[in-house]
Amino acid sequence: MPTNAERAQTLIHALPYIQKYAGKIVVIKYGGNAMIDEELKSAVMRDVVLLSLVGVKVVLVHGGGPEISDLLKKIGKKSEFVDGLRVTDGETIDVVQMVLAGKVNKTLVNLLHLAGGRAIGLSGMDGHMITAKKHSEAHGFVGDVVAVDTKPILDVLEKGYTPVISTLGVDDEGGIYNINADTAAAEIAGSLNAESMISMTDIAGLMRDPKDPTTLMPVVDISEVPALRREGVISGGMIPKVECCVEAIRQGVKKVFIIDGRVPHSIIIEMLTDEGIGTMFV
Amino acid sequence: MPTNAERAQTLIHALPYIQKYAGKIVVIKYGGNAMIDEELKSAVMRDVVLLSLVGVKVVLVHGGGPEISDLLKKIGKKSEFVDGLRVTDGETIDVVQMVLAGKVNKTLVNLLHLAGGRAIGLSGMDGHMITAKKHSEAHGFVGDVVAVDTKPILDVLEKGYTPVISTLGVDDEGGIYNINADTAAAEIAGSLNAESMISMTDIAGLMRDPKDPTTLMPVVDISEVPALRREGVISGGMIPKVECCVEAIRQGVKKVFIIDGRVPHSIIIEMLTDEGIGTMFV
Amino acid sequence: MPTNAERAQTLIHALPYIQKYAGKIVVIKYGGNAMIDEELKSAVMRDVVLLSLVGVKVVLVHGGGPEISDLLKKIGKKSEFVDGLRVTDGETIDVVQMVLAGKVNKTLVNLLHLAGGRAIGLSGMDGHMITAKKHSEAHGFVGDVVAVDTKPILDVLEKGYTPVISTLGVDDEGGIYNINADTAAAEIAGSLNAESMISMTDIAGLMRDPKDPTTLMPVVDISEVPALRREGVISGGMIPKVECCVEAIRQGVKKVFIIDGRVPHSIIIEMLTDEGIGTMFV
Amino acid sequence: MPTNAERAQTLIHALPYIQKYAGKIVVIKYGGNAMIDEELKSAVMRDVVLLSLVGVKVVLVHGGGPEISDLLKKIGKKSEFVDGLRVTDGETIDVVQMVLAGKVNKTLVNLLHLAGGRAIGLSGMDGHMITAKKHSEAHGFVGDVVAVDTKPILDVLEKGYTPVISTLGVDDEGGIYNINADTAAAEIAGSLNAESMISMTDIAGLMRDPKDPTTLMPVVDISEVPALRREGVISGGMIPKVECCVEAIRQGVKKVFIIDGRVPHSIIIEMLTDEGIGTMFV
Amino acid sequence: MPTNAERAQTLIHALPYIQKYAGKIVVIKYGGNAMIDEELKSAVMRDVVLLSLVGVKVVLVHGGGPEISDLLKKIGKKSEFVDGLRVTDGETIDVVQMVLAGKVNKTLVNLLHLAGGRAIGLSGMDGHMITAKKHSEAHGFVGDVVAVDTKPILDVLEKGYTPVISTLGVDDEGGIYNINADTAAAEIAGSLNAESMISMTDIAGLMRDPKDPTTLMPVVDISEVPALRREGVISGGMIPKVECCVEAIRQGVKKVFIIDGRVPHSIIIEMLTDEGIGTMFV
Amino acid sequence: MPTNAERAQTLIHALPYIQKYAGKIVVIKYGGNAMIDEELKSAVMRDVVLLSLVGVKVVLVHGGGPEISDLLKKIGKKSEFVDGLRVTDGETIDVVQMVLAGKVNKTLVNLLHLAGGRAIGLSGMDGHMITAKKHSEAHGFVGDVVAVDTKPILDVLEKGYTPVISTLGVDDEGGIYNINADTAAAEIAGSLNAESMISMTDIAGLMRDPKDPTTLMPVVDISEVPALRREGVISGGMIPKVECCVEAIRQGVKKVFIIDGRVPHSIIIEMLTDEGIGTMFV
Repeated sequence: MPTNAERAQTLIHALPYIQKYAGKIVVIKYGGNAMIDEELKSAVMRDVVLLSLVGVKVVLVHGGGPEISDLLKKIGKKSEFVDGLRVTDGETIDVVQMVLAGKVNKTLVNLLHLAGGRAIGLSGMDGHMITAKKHSEAHGFVGDVVAVDTKPILDVLEKGYTPVISTLGVDDEGGIYNINADTAAAEIAGSLNAESMISMTDIAGLMRDPKDPTTLMPVVDISEVPALRREGVISGGMIPKVECCVEAIRQGVKKVFIIDGRVPHSIIIEMLTDEGIGTMFV
Repeated sequence: MPTNAERAQTLIHALPYIQKYAGKIVVIKYGGNAMIDEELKSAVMRDVVLLSLVGVKVVLVHGGGPEISDLLKKIGKKSEFVDGLRVTDGETIDVVQMVLAGKVNKTLVNLLHLAGGRAIGLSGMDGHMITAKKHSEAHGFVGDVVAVDTKPILDVLEKGYTPVISTLGVDDEGGIYNINADTAAAEIAGSLNAESMISMTDIAGLMRDPKDPTTLMPVVDISEVPALRREGVISGGMIPKVECCVEAIRQGVKKVFIIDGRVPHSIIIEMLTDEGIGTMFV
Repeated sequence: MPTNAERAQTLIHALPYIQKYAGKIVVIKYGGNAMIDEELKSAVMRDVVLLSLVGVKVVLVHGGGPEISDLLKKIGKKSEFVDGLRVTDGETIDVVQMVLAGKVNKTLVNLLHLAGGRAIGLSGMDGHMITAKKHSEAHGFVGDVVAVDTKPILDVLEKGYTPVISTLGVDDEGGIYNINADTAAAEIAGSLNAESMISMTDIAGLMRDPKDPTTLMPVVDISEVPALRREGVISGGMIPKVECCVEAIRQGVKKVFIIDGRVPHSIIIEMLTDEGIGTMFV
Repeated sequence: MPTNAERAQTLIHALPYIQKYAGKIVVIKYGGNAMIDEELKSAVMRDVVLLSLVGVKVVLVHGGGPEISDLLKKIGKKSEFVDGLRVTDGETIDVVQMVLAGKVNKTLVNLLHLAGGRAIGLSGMDGHMITAKKHSEAHGFVGDVVAVDTKPILDVLEKGYTPVISTLGVDDEGGIYNINADTAAAEIAGSLNAESMISMTDIAGLMRDPKDPTTLMPVVDISEVPALRREGVISGGMIPKVECCVEAIRQGVKKVFIIDGRVPHSIIIEMLTDEGIGTMFV
Repeated sequence: MPTNAERAQTLIHALPYIQKYAGKIVVIKYGGNAMIDEELKSAVMRDVVLLSLVGVKVVLVHGGGPEISDLLKKIGKKSEFVDGLRVTDGETIDVVQMVLAGKVNKTLVNLLHLAGGRAIGLSGMDGHMITAKKHSEAHGFVGDVVAVDTKPILDVLEKGYTPVISTLGVDDEGGIYNINADTAAAEIAGSLNAESMISMTDIAGLMRDPKDPTTLMPVVDISEVPALRREGVISGGMIPKVECCVEAIRQGVKKVFIIDGRVPHSIIIEMLTDEGIGTMFV
Repeated sequence: MPTNAERAQTLIHALPYIQKYAGKIVVIKYGGNAMIDEELKSAVMRDVVLLSLVGVKVVLVHGGGPEISDLLKKIGKKSEFVDGLRVTDGETIDVVQMVLAGKVNKTLVNLLHLAGGRAIGLSGMDGHMITAKKHSEAHGFVGDVVAVDTKPILDVLEKGYTPVISTLGVDDEGGIYNINADTAAAEIAGSLNAESMISMTDIAGLMRDPKDPTTLMPVVDISEVPALRREGVISGGMIPKVECCVEAIRQGVKKVFIIDGRVPHSIIIEMLTDEGIGTMFV
């Protein structure tokens, strides 16, 4: 237990970091274990509220794969996968919409209020924010982002709420699409010219040897990424995650972080202390 | 088919009605057949967009009973009723939240955009808008409205969007409650000091003899309501609906209408033509 | 007599047209029979108020030739014409000023209020809005537009009034000039980057054969105008009117319409129904 | 010719007077000789522009009796008088409207711009500013003020223009009335809660002996007025003028001045030097 | 050295305290050892910047007794004291003004910028903020506060600066007075309806037995103060300090703290941790 | 003594000059005899207040050489000079800071309020307004301007105060520097894109023959300056003053004046009468 003097000291140490981010937009892609474990979830909520209070404009983007699978299972719907993506028919997209925009989104909004924040939940339909198109005929209602209208996000921020975003997209005929949350977060961060994007995952960061935590790469220049893929350092599930980081940097986000959502308050550690955790892409 | 001259004439006839409502808040409780029949639904969307364009500040409040029942059935959940209200356990309130805030709400938002409007979907969780408490221990997560914070609604209106509201409520411990949409609409309209509230139902209005449409009562003073209940004119499912109308008037709403949602564009007929349809409570 | 259902239908049909013009500036050059016939006049007033209510920023520009002639006759002043323009001496410009800025302008403002609108009458002197110079020594106080300061117009619009404009101009020595209302309207519309200009006349539009209404040309590209003049399709009094339309398009107005002011509510028919009347220049 | 040092001294002497009026509303009833003599007129214009520049919110209210008589004479219209008020039929009110709102008003606006100011001319019709009713059946379109809507005046002031007001009034059926300019100025000043009202006349002020300028009364408390009328000090044409001063004070105007419009720059002398001229009512 | 995880934990613990003060005005009376010791001074600067960043509107009020004595000594000026107050002649008030408004004030402003803040230094002369009157003829230019005009303070806060205030006062003849900083801080806090006032001193707080730190009284209701004075618990130099606390509470400040300025970051400990230090008056 | 009529005439004559400067920024470098002689000082204060009242945005920049020397002498500090600049050690810069920011600045602010104005005193530390660097190692804390942040000045102007500026500068390590007031005024005027800069001195202006006032040069184009220096017309103490004028013009100030501060109200004579005094650089 730190003494109050030590606590004050710690708060003061956070000063330069707070100054760095005050008034800036930070997009947090919230997912993985930190969204399932109740304690971790509650820690993330307090992290977001703290950041808002010290003047950071947090935009929270979430997915919800496991909850979607749960409900599909409950209604006895079998899932088919093509190229690793779930074939999404009309019934499935309904389930996706209900789980993401109804359950996960509003539950997060509710938790943010419990932690003392103020939030409004949005989906790509609200203000026609995320325009999407079909990824492929074969995948049905799986969408690629065509454009992000940042107005609803900025309107909500300006009125003093934390926008919480479900990554559903719409097309001009009213079609609704499920969009990968990492991809959507990168597009949203890029469109907002965010100061940084933080992607919460279930690994410690990019490691030269995934089995050896001492090989964690604290900083990666996106120009190194192709070589790292050839060398197999970036592989498997990390490939799309890293691609989103690269894309966000390309669209003008200054810094992108992959951090370990399993560590409590990893967002605060990354943003408000002198030692980054995870991997920063620049 | 009217000629264009006749069309122009009709538009001009709407002038005094438009003037009457311009800049005023009108709460529309959307439900019943008009929310199920695709053609009627599309007509309502265009009604709302037209009202917004002529300067009315529309707040759309919806329920979603049938869709809730559908999903409960799909997941094999049996419903128990006490005093006409569904006993709502934890699993059920999850379904309610998903259906209302995820499916019905966002689908309406999407349809409003298709009709040329701009909308943002809200629930009682967003901005901690609707504070609720348990209706009774027996009913579980069925809630009564404790307070409505109109700030999120007014913020969304001010930024130029039509707020679409799911009637879920929250308590200070994060509990989520299903609230009757008619009741919630009345509380919202009252809190907003709305110019009028329109309740869309599946009947022509209040009739002295429900079997004889010629006995429709165009205007009812709320002081007449107790007598009408004693006489049995207001009975069955009409009792709670009328109670909400009375409550809204008591809370300061100027006029409350029960209109027939089965008639296409009944909102426009009621608001922008010289002949009301349905029953107006004052 | 349409039923209310048909009325609602008509209002809904106007939706896309209202959306097209909402928030845009439309300059209406008001003149001809529609300014003399009391019933037509009253119809125009209601058209303007309706457009204002649905969000169009209407700027009403008027002339007043017949009323000027009336007063000149009453005071026993003979008029001399050179090249079709009235020779305007000091006494005549006084009469012009009184009739336009005093009688016609304020009467229109008054009528707009009677129709439920809010208006402020302006002349080129107000805010030194229209700078003019002598057209020629021979014509005396007949002016050509040198510049339009749109600030007074935009100020009046911003405060929620319909500006009604008399087309008098001033020079820097305080000289006052009578400016042709069509020309002034084109210059005003151009300076405002108006969405469209509507010129109300006493013909159905531009016709290949003026005696045959079936030869009405619904759309004319301004590049066709020189040929149409050579062919005699544009001749006589239509020449200056069409020149103003061409000028307005050149100055950046998107669409210019010549419509038949003798048809009641022709403005509404043109703007808010699916069938244009008259001729549109693009 | 003062030296520049003396000029600077004079400007500095004006400092406390400027401070006293900065940001305050002052209604100037402009009339009499100062409105006819070209040199005096030009002096008044410069006075108004100077006051505006030093931060006074000047509202200029004018009549125009002589010009009305001129035009009536020109069109060969005979005037009949009842109780000292001109019987005003439909043709006469047309002439009044043209002369006041068209000629006098816009000419003043033009002159203010020549003197370097910015002005917009208004009449009681603009923004439905002055609601009037018939003074008596016998007098036709002679009106009494029912209400002044100050919004158009304040809107014009806020946008940085000097409002110049013709004292015509309207009723809700569109009837137009000629209103005595002194009365209207008092009502306008009262409705605006003006700091002061200045009435320009052709006398030096209220004198105990009208033939002896040394008997000028510099200050009159309105409670003394009834006695002064009994004693005959206030008589003839001064009676209605003084009544308007009394009325303005009663409606909340702090100070009302009757000043000599025949003295060049009498407004500036009254407001910005240490020696009042004329009579101040408190 | 705490780990980063512990640091994050500490930051999160501060959340409810930050929420409590966000957007509120807190007046800090800065003085004593914390203003002399360079390290403590630098700690206070960082405390103020941190509070500003988390949304607290800090108003820093300072004295400067020791520096005044230093300069007086340097110029060879002897000080005479009456009733414990320095007799302040014209030469002395000049020295006071130079030291407070020139040296101490601007040095603090400079240090706040070095710590990453934004500040503007004000004295009672700026915006004629503190109106004062002579305390007594005998004391010369020692002043009592007559009124505080909060406009300059609020203007500076609104523009995003921390106001740093020297407690000099002025009278309407331009006389300048030295005002006790504790008294002035209490008056300023009261006039601003501050959420709290913090008075930094060189003791641990109010102690029943000044020699025994375990007898620190954490909370004192101002109604207890008279008894505590009678009992001698409040005595000597504490009397005026406590009087200022009582006065601030009486003028509407919610809570007033006497804290130990010798403890580094005592402001942060008091405001952002769960354990107060010093004594809180309510 | 002018009559009131003559006074009014003089005020009216000032009209075009007032119009020319209304809303414009004018930087006044206040110094020399006008800052020492009590009567002249009081005259300057009234000049500044008058200019503010007629809409000029005055920025008052002052030095304070004589007062600095006085205090240094009082504390027995000897001054050493190198190249005409005082060698400024740590003790000396403390004295400079106290005299400029504490004494001269706040006394001017106080006098402006006595004259009816509203002022806030700023130094280069406030809002970190003037960034400076060492002029040379030999001179110690004598600074050159690196950059002027105009935000604090504009913030103070926008809130309705006259900014009074002490020309102290700071570097990023917190070092404080004494900056020549003429140089700083030129840099401030340039950074503000001021309409004009007025430098008050103790000579009548630039004279071909300094002994013959009839050789005063009313206008000098800055391209003539090098020749005038070669010819010896600009020499001695005039060299740095003229260099500042040239620098201000180069940085975009429209007109720069050297005026005679020994003439009462010379600012008003220069700005608000038809005859300039002193020399204008363009």
